[in-house]
Amino acid sequence: MIAEILSVGTELLLGDILNTNAQYLSKRLADLGIFVYFQTVVGDNNERLKKAYDIAFKRADVVITTGGLGPTKDDLTKEIGAEYFGKNLILHEDLLEEIKGYFKKLNRDFVKSNEKQAYFPEGAVILPNENGTAPGCIIDEKGKMLIMLPGPPFEMIPMFENYVVPYIKKYIDGAIVSKVIRTFGIGESSMAEKVSDLIENMTNPTVAPYAKQNEAILRITARAKDEFEAKKLIEPIAEEIKNRLLDYVYGEDDDTLENVVGRMLLDKNITISTAESCTGGLLAAKLINYPGISKVFIEGAVTYSNEAKISRLKVKKETLQKYGAVSSQVAAEMALGIAKASNTRIGISTTGIAGPGGGSDEKPVGLVYIGLCIDGNVKTVRYNFSGDRQKIRERAAMYAIDYLRRELKNIF
Amino acid sequence: MIAEILSVGTELLLGDILNTNAQYLSKRLADLGIFVYFQTVVGDNNERLKKAYDIAFKRADVVITTGGLGPTKDDLTKEIGAEYFGKNLILHEDLLEEIKGYFKKLNRDFVKSNEKQAYFPEGAVILPNENGTAPGCIIDEKGKMLIMLPGPPFEMIPMFENYVVPYIKKYIDGAIVSKVIRTFGIGESSMAEKVSDLIENMTNPTVAPYAKQNEAILRITARAKDEFEAKKLIEPIAEEIKNRLLDYVYGEDDDTLENVVGRMLLDKNITISTAESCTGGLLAAKLINYPGISKVFIEGAVTYSNEAKISRLKVKKETLQKYGAVSSQVAAEMALGIAKASNTRIGISTTGIAGPGGGSDEKPVGLVYIGLCIDGNVKTVRYNFSGDRQKIRERAAMYAIDYLRRELKNIF
Repeated sequence: MIAEILSVGTELLLGDILNTNAQYLSKRLADLGIFVYFQTVVGDNNERLKKAYDIAFKRADVVITTGGLGPTKDDLTKEIGAEYFGKNLILHEDLLEEIKGYFKKLNRDFVKSNEKQAYFPEGAVILPNENGTAPGCIIDEKGKMLIMLPGPPFEMIPMFENYVVPYIKKYIDGAIVSKVIRTFGIGESSMAEKVSDLIENMTNPTVAPYAKQNEAILRITARAKDEFEAKKLIEPIAEEIKNRLLDYVYGEDDDTLENVVGRMLLDKNITISTAESCTGGLLAAKLINYPGISKVFIEGAVTYSNEAKISRLKVKKETLQKYGAVSSQVAAEMALGIAKASNTRIGISTTGIAGPGGGSDEKPVGLVYIGLCIDGNVKTVRYNFSGDRQKIRERAAMYAIDYLRRELKNIF
Repeated sequence: MIAEILSVGTELLLGDILNTNAQYLSKRLADLGIFVYFQTVVGDNNERLKKAYDIAFKRADVVITTGGLGPTKDDLTKEIGAEYFGKNLILHEDLLEEIKGYFKKLNRDFVKSNEKQAYFPEGAVILPNENGTAPGCIIDEKGKMLIMLPGPPFEMIPMFENYVVPYIKKYIDGAIVSKVIRTFGIGESSMAEKVSDLIENMTNPTVAPYAKQNEAILRITARAKDEFEAKKLIEPIAEEIKNRLLDYVYGEDDDTLENVVGRMLLDKNITISTAESCTGGLLAAKLINYPGISKVFIEGAVTYSNEAKISRLKVKKETLQKYGAVSSQVAAEMALGIAKASNTRIGISTTGIAGPGGGSDEKPVGLVYIGLCIDGNVKTVRYNFSGDRQKIRERAAMYAIDYLRRELKNIF
C-alpha cells in the first residue's frame, strides 16, 4: 500500500508553521508498513489543490490530507476532495448539533459559517473530532482512499490514532507491532551505542533510536502473522534493552515521566509538596498533570523572591547571604522547609539561574540545584543545563522529577 | 517569480526528521516576495526524483532542493539535476583540494567517495559551503533556475543567506512586508467575520486569518517598491482591524500573551502573586517565563487540597463547605488570600475541574473559576473549557492571564 501526505495550508507555504503533521504521519505509516514516496504541501487555492489531488492519486493508493477543514471560505480540502470523487456534500444534522453544542460549552456565539463543518461527501466515513469543531472523513472507493484530517496537531493526532489506524489496518496483511522503551538522562547517541549491535543487526524485530525533547527512546518493531506472534518477537529484545540501559529506562509506550512518578506516589500513598524558584510552578504543574494526584500532592510554593523563601520556607537569611539563593544549601533548606510546612513525607525544591541575565563565571546561566527531602533526609543534586530560559526551566523540572523517580525506586 | 521547494531524503519520508528547511526557505522566500505554491518531499530514488523535478519545473520558475549532495551513492540530487538540464558533471580541482583540506582540519582520513562532491554540472554557479564538505550550486538557464543546497540546516542556512539571496535578488522587484495582529478569546471564525470585508476584498495589502493554539491571528501582507512604502500600506489596515477587534487584540508580530502581561506588570511595577488549584503551577510558570519578572512576581501558591487553601490562603471552611472548592466564592477568597499573604497589589487564582474524573451535572469537567484581586477589589469569572486534562489546565492558565491583561488595561 502506497500513501501520500498532502498538507493543505498557505501558512505552511509562508513558513508560518512547521509541518509537524507530515513527520508524524510519515513515522506512523512507516510503523504500519505503509510506504510513503512523496509528501506535498499546497496552499488554500482551488486550482492548485485540484492539481495536487490529481498528481497524488496518480502515484499513491491512499492520500492523507491535513488542514483546510475549518469554517472559512479558504478551507477547501473537503469541497475539492468531494469534487474530485464526483460526490455531493450532504448536511449531517447530528454533527451540526454537536458543533453547536461545542460552541455553547465554550460560551461562544455560533457563527453561521461553521455550518460548513457539518457537510460531508456522500457516503464518506465520518471521523469524530474530540478536540475541535471540524470532523474529518474518509472517501474509500474503487481502490483509492482519501483521508481528510484537521490541521491542528492536537486534533489531528487523536483522530488519526483512534479512527484512521483501526480503519486502514484491515487493508494491511499480518501485523506490525511496536513497543517503545523510554529513557531519561542519557543522550540518543550514548543510548544507541549501548545497544548498537541490536540496532545494526536485527531485522525482525528492528530496533531504532529516536531523540525526543528531553528523552531518548528506542522503538522495537516486529512483523508477524498476528499481533500475538509479533509481541512474542518483541519481548526478549525489550528485556535485553532494559538490562543494558538499567535505571535510564523509566517506562514504555505511552508512559511519561510525570505519570510514572505520579503513579509511584499514589500507589504507595506518599505525600509530596514542592518549593520552586527557577522552575516557577512548572514542577508542580507537571506532577499535577497526573489524574488523581490530589490525594498525595498537598501543596506547592513558588518562592521566587528571597523574602518568600524566608517567610514561606524558613530558609535562613544567613544561608542566603553566605551561599546565595542558587546553592546546594538553599535547595536543601527549601526542600526541608516545604516538607515541614505542608507536613508531607516528600519535599522537593528547585533553585537555579534560568537567564538570560543573572549568570556569572562562578554561577553561569543554566546552573540548577534540586533538593529532595524524604522523611526528613535531605539530598541535593547539581546540574548545568544549556538552552534558553524556557528550555532551562523545562529541563530543571524534568530532571527534578527524574531525580525523584530514581530515589523513590531505591527507597520504597 | 514562482519557486518550489523540493526536499530530498528518505529520512524525511520515514518521519525520522522534521522538515525545518522547507519552513525556513518558505519564510525567507515570502520575505523576498517570491511565491511558493508547492513544497515537495521525495526520497533518495532515481526515478521518483526525476519525476519530482519534472512536476516542479512545470509549475515553477525556480526549484530549490535541499539534501542529496553528500558523498554516498544515495545522494542523487546533483546527478539527476544535471541530467534534467542535459549537462555533464565536471571535476573542480580547486574544490577537491578544499574538501581534502576540510578533512585534514577535522583529522579525518579522506575517503575516495568524497571526490563526488567536487563534481558539478557544466556552467553551474558554485555555492561555497563554509560549514561542511558539500558545496551547493545553481543551474540558471532558459528562464529556469535549479538551486541545490545541502540538507543539514547549519550548512543550508548560511549558504542560502550568503550566496543564494544575493544571486536571486537581481531578479526581484520591490518588497513584501507582513504584520501579524494577535487576538485571544475569540475563535478564528468569529474573528474572520468581523473583518470579512477586508479578508475578501483587499488585494494589497491582503488580510488572512489563522488559528493557532489558544489564539487566532490575522496576517496583513503588502507589496510595494520598498519596505517603507509597504509599511505605509499596512498601517491603516492594522489600525482598522484593531478598532474592530478591540480588546481581543493583545499584541503584534512576535508578542505572546504572557510577555505582554509581564511587560505591563514590570512597566508599572505592580506586584503580583498567584494561588492555583486546577492549573497547579502552570499560571505561575507562564508568568515567570517573562525575563525580569522576579521584580514584581512575589510568590505563587499551589493549593491543590482544601487544607492548603485554608491554611495557606485563609479560605473559610464554611465557604468550602457551602459552595465547594470549585466556586466563584472560593476563587475570590483565594485571590484575596494570596494577595494579603504576599502583600501584593494583585492576587490571581484558579479553581476548577480538570478531569478526567470529578465532574457532575452541576459542575462538569472543564468548569473553571478565575479570581482576581486588584488593590483589595475582587472579581471572578467563570469558564467552561473543553478538551482533556492537560488542555483544560492550559486553557485555564491562558484565560487567567488574558483576564488579567484586560483588567490591567482598564484600570492602570
